[in-house]
Amino acid sequence: VQSLSKNKIKWIRSLQLKKNRDELGLFIVEGEKMVQEAIENFSQQIDFLVVTKFSSIKTDDVSFEVAIATDEELKSISTLKNPNKSLVVLKLPAKRRIETDFRIALDGIQDPGNLGTILRLADWFDVKEIICSKETVDVYNPKVVQASMGAIFRIKVTYCDLEDYLKKIKVPIFGALLEGQNIYKKTVEPKGILVLGNEGNGISEKIIPLITEPITIPRFGQAESLNVSVATGILLSEFFRGN
Amino acid sequence: VQSLSKNKIKWIRSLQLKKNRDELGLFIVEGEKMVQEAIENFSQQIDFLVVTKFSSIKTDDVSFEVAIATDEELKSISTLKNPNKSLVVLKLPAKRRIETDFRIALDGIQDPGNLGTILRLADWFDVKEIICSKETVDVYNPKVVQASMGAIFRIKVTYCDLEDYLKKIKVPIFGALLEGQNIYKKTVEPKGILVLGNEGNGISEKIIPLITEPITIPRFGQAESLNVSVATGILLSEFFRGN
Repeated sequence: VQSLSKNKIKWIRSLQLKKNRDELGLFIVEGEKMVQEAIENFSQQIDFLVVTKFSSIKTDDVSFEVAIATDEELKSISTLKNPNKSLVVLKLPAKRRIETDFRIALDGIQDPGNLGTILRLADWFDVKEIICSKETVDVYNPKVVQASMGAIFRIKVTYCDLEDYLKKIKVPIFGALLEGQNIYKKTVEPKGILVLGNEGNGISEKIIPLITEPITIPRFGQAESLNVSVATGILLSEFFRGN
Repeated sequence: VQSLSKNKIKWIRSLQLKKNRDELGLFIVEGEKMVQEAIENFSQQIDFLVVTKFSSIKTDDVSFEVAIATDEELKSISTLKNPNKSLVVLKLPAKRRIETDFRIALDGIQDPGNLGTILRLADWFDVKEIICSKETVDVYNPKVVQASMGAIFRIKVTYCDLEDYLKKIKVPIFGALLEGQNIYKKTVEPKGILVLGNEGNGISEKIIPLITEPITIPRFGQAESLNVSVATGILLSEFFRGN
């Protein structure tokens, strides 16, 4: 096994920027558990694997390049505060068609932790596709990948002009709005699309008129709002609890 | 208005450590909105206010010390990536008695963002008290304060030996466990205490036998687990949806 060259360090670090990820068609996954998952399920997509001597990832008989790094080298290419023992560079997945009756749409989610948590939630409730407005944080941002806990491998994420997309579809468009219908009093089933808005501003002005089913989580106390990933969890739970 | 002295800078920075917060009985709140809320509702508790010239906080006729800081100075005392325009040092609140039928207990939550989000959730659903095991992250950790979005002013948080606490109480003890009863099939009302476990390990071995009502959120897809603050949201929603 080769050691990690300076050029490879530079190349991996460059993938922290969306511009470079898009140009090279590559992204990073870190941590023993997610790296193992990538190797087991997506070995075709793997471009390059980095392990430290403490890693338990088996590297015999693999069909991709492997380098061994010191803890310091791993730290220098990692986006984690406490880097794990391995990191893998993956090719962006090919676009695939998904058959599903229910989708989530994100209108300008900015926080990578929120997007990652929403991916994880989609994976829990078996929502197979997430539609993101162009303003939404990149799903291959390393913090999103990490917070998704492997969901990134299973959920299809599509970026588009959300206004155009919603104008064209002919399904119920649910939207989390403060003045929507009480979600506990309305029977909802997972057919259509559920729109969640930006952390600070909610659903944008141009999208609001496209919402056919405004819904809201009633408030019992004094908090002004809920975190968007928590609100997504509560709403998904309402969509799926009757199933 | 005085400018911010080096000694004050050192003093405020020291409050980033729990040891110093406990010793001095002080904690920090940042950002125009939360600072404004502190001044409006808890001016008795305020020890010291720092504003930049861009702050819109009114500082006439206030009964506490105020200093003006440059953006660089605020950055040097802030725990935020993008420091806001004001920061306030508050005295820890006095212990108060709370009458309530329903509490949340946290068994070793480590991530400040999760604790802050759970405070915000408690504030939304009007859960008035959170009991934390000694291993749980400090509620006056600046990242918790920030993520709580003001809930820290309204929710009582008590640290104790959680095992002792749960052994002494005579109310239903709900616990989020993977092998619990399906929360969608069990009618729950907000009476008793809801225990949530650590991010990686769940509820600890010594607490599990004390759970009288093990409950679980059914999984439809493939994610291994849910983020603990998201799970708290879904469970609280189930407790309160019938009310």
